[in-house]
Amino acid sequence: MGLYIKGNRMIIVMKYGADEAQIEAVVHKIHQSGLKEHLSRGAELTIIGVIGDEERLDPSRFAILPGVDRVNRVAKQYKIVSRSTHPHGTTIKVRGIEIGGAQIQIIAGPYAAESAQQMDLSADALALISCRLMRCGAFHSPPYAVPRKEREALAWLKHAAARHQLPVVAELSDVRMLDAFMEHDIEMIQIGERNMQNLDLLREVGRINKPIILKRGVSATIVEWLMAAESIAAGGNHNIIFCEHGIRTFENAYRNVLDVSAIAVLKQETHLPVMVDPSDACGKSWMVPALTKAAIAAGADGILLDVHPNPAEALYAADQTLSPLDLAQLIAGLQPLAAALGRSL
Amino acid sequence: MGLYIKGNRMIIVMKYGADEAQIEAVVHKIHQSGLKEHLSRGAELTIIGVIGDEERLDPSRFAILPGVDRVNRVAKQYKIVSRSTHPHGTTIKVRGIEIGGAQIQIIAGPYAAESAQQMDLSADALALISCRLMRCGAFHSPPYAVPRKEREALAWLKHAAARHQLPVVAELSDVRMLDAFMEHDIEMIQIGERNMQNLDLLREVGRINKPIILKRGVSATIVEWLMAAESIAAGGNHNIIFCEHGIRTFENAYRNVLDVSAIAVLKQETHLPVMVDPSDACGKSWMVPALTKAAIAAGADGILLDVHPNPAEALYAADQTLSPLDLAQLIAGLQPLAAALGRSL
Amino acid sequence: MGLYIKGNRMIIVMKYGADEAQIEAVVHKIHQSGLKEHLSRGAELTIIGVIGDEERLDPSRFAILPGVDRVNRVAKQYKIVSRSTHPHGTTIKVRGIEIGGAQIQIIAGPYAAESAQQMDLSADALALISCRLMRCGAFHSPPYAVPRKEREALAWLKHAAARHQLPVVAELSDVRMLDAFMEHDIEMIQIGERNMQNLDLLREVGRINKPIILKRGVSATIVEWLMAAESIAAGGNHNIIFCEHGIRTFENAYRNVLDVSAIAVLKQETHLPVMVDPSDACGKSWMVPALTKAAIAAGADGILLDVHPNPAEALYAADQTLSPLDLAQLIAGLQPLAAALGRSL
Amino acid sequence: MGLYIKGNRMIIVMKYGADEAQIEAVVHKIHQSGLKEHLSRGAELTIIGVIGDEERLDPSRFAILPGVDRVNRVAKQYKIVSRSTHPHGTTIKVRGIEIGGAQIQIIAGPYAAESAQQMDLSADALALISCRLMRCGAFHSPPYAVPRKEREALAWLKHAAARHQLPVVAELSDVRMLDAFMEHDIEMIQIGERNMQNLDLLREVGRINKPIILKRGVSATIVEWLMAAESIAAGGNHNIIFCEHGIRTFENAYRNVLDVSAIAVLKQETHLPVMVDPSDACGKSWMVPALTKAAIAAGADGILLDVHPNPAEALYAADQTLSPLDLAQLIAGLQPLAAALGRSL
Repeated sequence: MGLYIKGNRMIIVMKYGADEAQIEAVVHKIHQSGLKEHLSRGAELTIIGVIGDEERLDPSRFAILPGVDRVNRVAKQYKIVSRSTHPHGTTIKVRGIEIGGAQIQIIAGPYAAESAQQMDLSADALALISCRLMRCGAFHSPPYAVPRKEREALAWLKHAAARHQLPVVAELSDVRMLDAFMEHDIEMIQIGERNMQNLDLLREVGRINKPIILKRGVSATIVEWLMAAESIAAGGNHNIIFCEHGIRTFENAYRNVLDVSAIAVLKQETHLPVMVDPSDACGKSWMVPALTKAAIAAGADGILLDVHPNPAEALYAADQTLSPLDLAQLIAGLQPLAAALGRSL
Repeated sequence: MGLYIKGNRMIIVMKYGADEAQIEAVVHKIHQSGLKEHLSRGAELTIIGVIGDEERLDPSRFAILPGVDRVNRVAKQYKIVSRSTHPHGTTIKVRGIEIGGAQIQIIAGPYAAESAQQMDLSADALALISCRLMRCGAFHSPPYAVPRKEREALAWLKHAAARHQLPVVAELSDVRMLDAFMEHDIEMIQIGERNMQNLDLLREVGRINKPIILKRGVSATIVEWLMAAESIAAGGNHNIIFCEHGIRTFENAYRNVLDVSAIAVLKQETHLPVMVDPSDACGKSWMVPALTKAAIAAGADGILLDVHPNPAEALYAADQTLSPLDLAQLIAGLQPLAAALGRSL
Repeated sequence: MGLYIKGNRMIIVMKYGADEAQIEAVVHKIHQSGLKEHLSRGAELTIIGVIGDEERLDPSRFAILPGVDRVNRVAKQYKIVSRSTHPHGTTIKVRGIEIGGAQIQIIAGPYAAESAQQMDLSADALALISCRLMRCGAFHSPPYAVPRKEREALAWLKHAAARHQLPVVAELSDVRMLDAFMEHDIEMIQIGERNMQNLDLLREVGRINKPIILKRGVSATIVEWLMAAESIAAGGNHNIIFCEHGIRTFENAYRNVLDVSAIAVLKQETHLPVMVDPSDACGKSWMVPALTKAAIAAGADGILLDVHPNPAEALYAADQTLSPLDLAQLIAGLQPLAAALGRSL
Repeated sequence: MGLYIKGNRMIIVMKYGADEAQIEAVVHKIHQSGLKEHLSRGAELTIIGVIGDEERLDPSRFAILPGVDRVNRVAKQYKIVSRSTHPHGTTIKVRGIEIGGAQIQIIAGPYAAESAQQMDLSADALALISCRLMRCGAFHSPPYAVPRKEREALAWLKHAAARHQLPVVAELSDVRMLDAFMEHDIEMIQIGERNMQNLDLLREVGRINKPIILKRGVSATIVEWLMAAESIAAGGNHNIIFCEHGIRTFENAYRNVLDVSAIAVLKQETHLPVMVDPSDACGKSWMVPALTKAAIAAGADGILLDVHPNPAEALYAADQTLSPLDLAQLIAGLQPLAAALGRSL
């Protein structure tokens, strides 16, 4: 909490023609707030730097003053997740499997839980292909869809994966379900794109001791995403993995645009691992191989993939889902790519 | 649940050069799913209409088939909230105050609860200006902000407003807080833009009997917004008010772009009332009067405004907040406007 | 051209942990560029202000230096079009008709020129409704459309309008057509949204003495738009009218989102008039009345509308086009609105 | 031109509750336009397919009719550039260098021409690194920048490159400059992102016999981009190379988002080669290697890069520019990547 005491700053840009009284009123409010100013006058433009403690620095309280053109924070607000606090990248371990190291991880499994058998067949296929982690996404049921049986589905997932010693990832959307996740010992928890800024949920998973895969909201800026991670980290849980999931743009030839630039930026801004979910980003299985390769080439530490024993019969998201054979072929193609990048798979 | 039985459809567009076997495979899957097809062959392009029951109609299960170019739903998925079910607009009453009728409602109050005194001063000012409804928005506290005392804040709000018989609106973000909202008899519940697709929360407020103000997510399409409302309505609560709140675009000269076109589209697509929150949309109090006028001219049934007894001392969102005097002047300017549009204020 | 000599500035924010040598290298480059620095050191963060002449201030030359986090311009780059140079708004006159004054102007006419008869019927209808200005938009012909006969179309437009003494607006997209516009004495020239950043075209219309209606590119920021206007103004032609035309967003329920916030921002940033084209923004005639009202309520000085003698037979853009009767009814509804806002129509 | 005669279609979706008379009026207009209809009636929804000749098929003429909900084209409008006309990809040769084949091409050179010496040094460096093609981008001079000397710059570029037998690419923005491009025998012409929909320019380059690199507008959809290429191809010049250049989104952590999904989609939709310009997309040289790798992994046939003999002294775009050493190191890293993908560099 004392993290922001020193050196934090905003810059207040006065309007052209702001007068002395307006400048003084700003300086007065800075002092009144227990902060210090740093004045820089120009022939046309006066700029005022503000130095001090974060808590007292809400920019909008200065932006409202007469003669102020705009107020910009210059200090970054995320701290624990910032690479400046951990110049070397962080590796997160899940039962001995490293995420964020030289080995790239493929986490695969069904988009939605349908039955115990579907889960078993999925786990069997993953084990055969030598995948090391299994996932099951939540399904966002439309108003008239069949009700979810989440607790039962968690049991299916866990049982199927345990037969092959695969740690699992499942999506938590309702804070009241956290107990069930703990009971079933779900190894990693995914926060979906719709909950990236659900502060109540972020706070809860900040208090537990399991790795969190934090998906990017479809219109979240990278700074908002880093701040969401900071909201988890502030509770004590620093085991956070970012997962790029596509962003919403004007283009409608595919669901979302996979933002590979975000991978490069995160690798600079945070020490935490970065994964990518190409299935959900594009919504089309035929695009998944190209996007997976692009994500890995851009530096991703892992990939989340929708895989179903029989995609043509998947209840949801069939057309973004790979078959086990598709997955095996994709992985075969990824191995030389990973090697060319100095990594393994 | 039987609503979708008849006449619902998708259109399957085959690729150029799709062959007979591919077309037959699609038709076979349509039959297999208990649906009917309607085939239209052209020299270059074959189109297949699909007729039947919604539950079996997940488009992605057809999109995955070889030779299929794309699959589009043609039937709309929202039903209860659709204007086609209520050609005349619906009016929602809160303690005798009509929302969605000829009278335009201004709902004003602080962005965030700070103290009992702040709430009292706010309510006093609103009563003086003859506002009929009071609001208090939730604050989305950043990781290191002071913890919220939501229950206490609800009590402040309710007590302050009750002194002037003002019904109140407050934002619910955590499903575990719903009890407190019921206990304090908060008259209307706001679902914030970050929770527009929080299905667990939508389901809960679908079971109670209070009007819900459903804010649009900053990157939600109008169809997604209508579907979110349908998710509430499906639970039995049809008292839903849409609230346009600005959408996120490439422009960064202001926070979000107030989408007045959405007002016109909603007025056609749904029978439910439509409100607008210009304060939060633009983030600048100097823009609020122009946007308020634009919203009313475009057909909005009401306006949500951030008002604080002393904006320069507001703890949050100071620069988007009006003073009571600003509000009084704004309302004076709105009265002739409302009259020119055949409405009252 | 000496406008930017004094007081222009950038702010260079150093990275956390930037060392002395890096700071000195930045300062050295500032001096080397003939500029001055203003250093502000904090415990964690050093900020360097740069003072001097615009020409030498390309931010990217500093952003590339080691230890630099980012470089922001703080001075605005538009000058002639800035309201700071003309605190009172500018009124532009076209044959005695004022744009930017108390009177709101409606400029109506066909989306595309089809025939002399179509133009005559359009002009007759406008005269009957007491419109004071006539327009004809260019049509952006798709690859296989009938070739445009632009010169002929200009003659039709001018002849039809002259019969009723209506000054005209036409769109110029090819710089080689400028002569024809001058020959036919087209009173105002429209630069379309696709050419907002066509610098060659902007320079040419900067050298003539006719009012220019500068449409906003569908993804242009307001600052880029102001800079495009500055590019015209720099050539000597200061008779520029901004025309908001809708921006491209993720929403696809209508063509573009009419950005009413832009009207409010332009009114603050520039002294020049602001118009709005709701027809082309939304692409649907049934939405035009609501958007026209919103634009006027937000402060627009005029409206461009697509009107055709018989919209159902219009060759292009039929569904965004009003009939003369639609227009007459719309105008009747706008008169009380304008009056309520203290303006006339 | 007879390409669209057969089988082209739209689908007209009627509103819920559209009556017989409305359906008949639509059918009547279809007949009147010399087209045929295909009627599909459902209990709730009637859909009308339209079959016939493209020229008579402007969807908006049907969208305007009473009872019509929407009109969608189902046939694609691009033909020459469509992969369906050339199932195998097309390779474009420039002086024996293949673009679109197994070999990936790196086209490098300065963002803007500064001097003959700068061009010579650039060409010398490229030759040393074994680059096979040289480029120079246009600079979009802001209003008060030094005037461009384009003709002189073309001579510098051509002279510098000729010393090493490097074919060159330069950007054409003003149609009046085409003669100069022909005179100097500029081997490839780039159409910049701001001119992607400048139809006059597209038509002119459609008439010459040089490869065109067509950059994507920052907010152009893929369909619009394909149509822009079709506009060139319709004139007879089929030597078109697409160049993804980043799209504008809400994110402002970098200039534009490099859309790697577009590469995959273009590879399916068109037979023409696809290149990527990561420098201009992201605007930061430190991100260029990651984005270059991602683009190649996603299937790009080539990369355009900003390279300057001394980036720190580049007059424009310094911070997105690589030094010759940076380029040599990047290429060394790309070689194993290309090999892993079954290509060469």
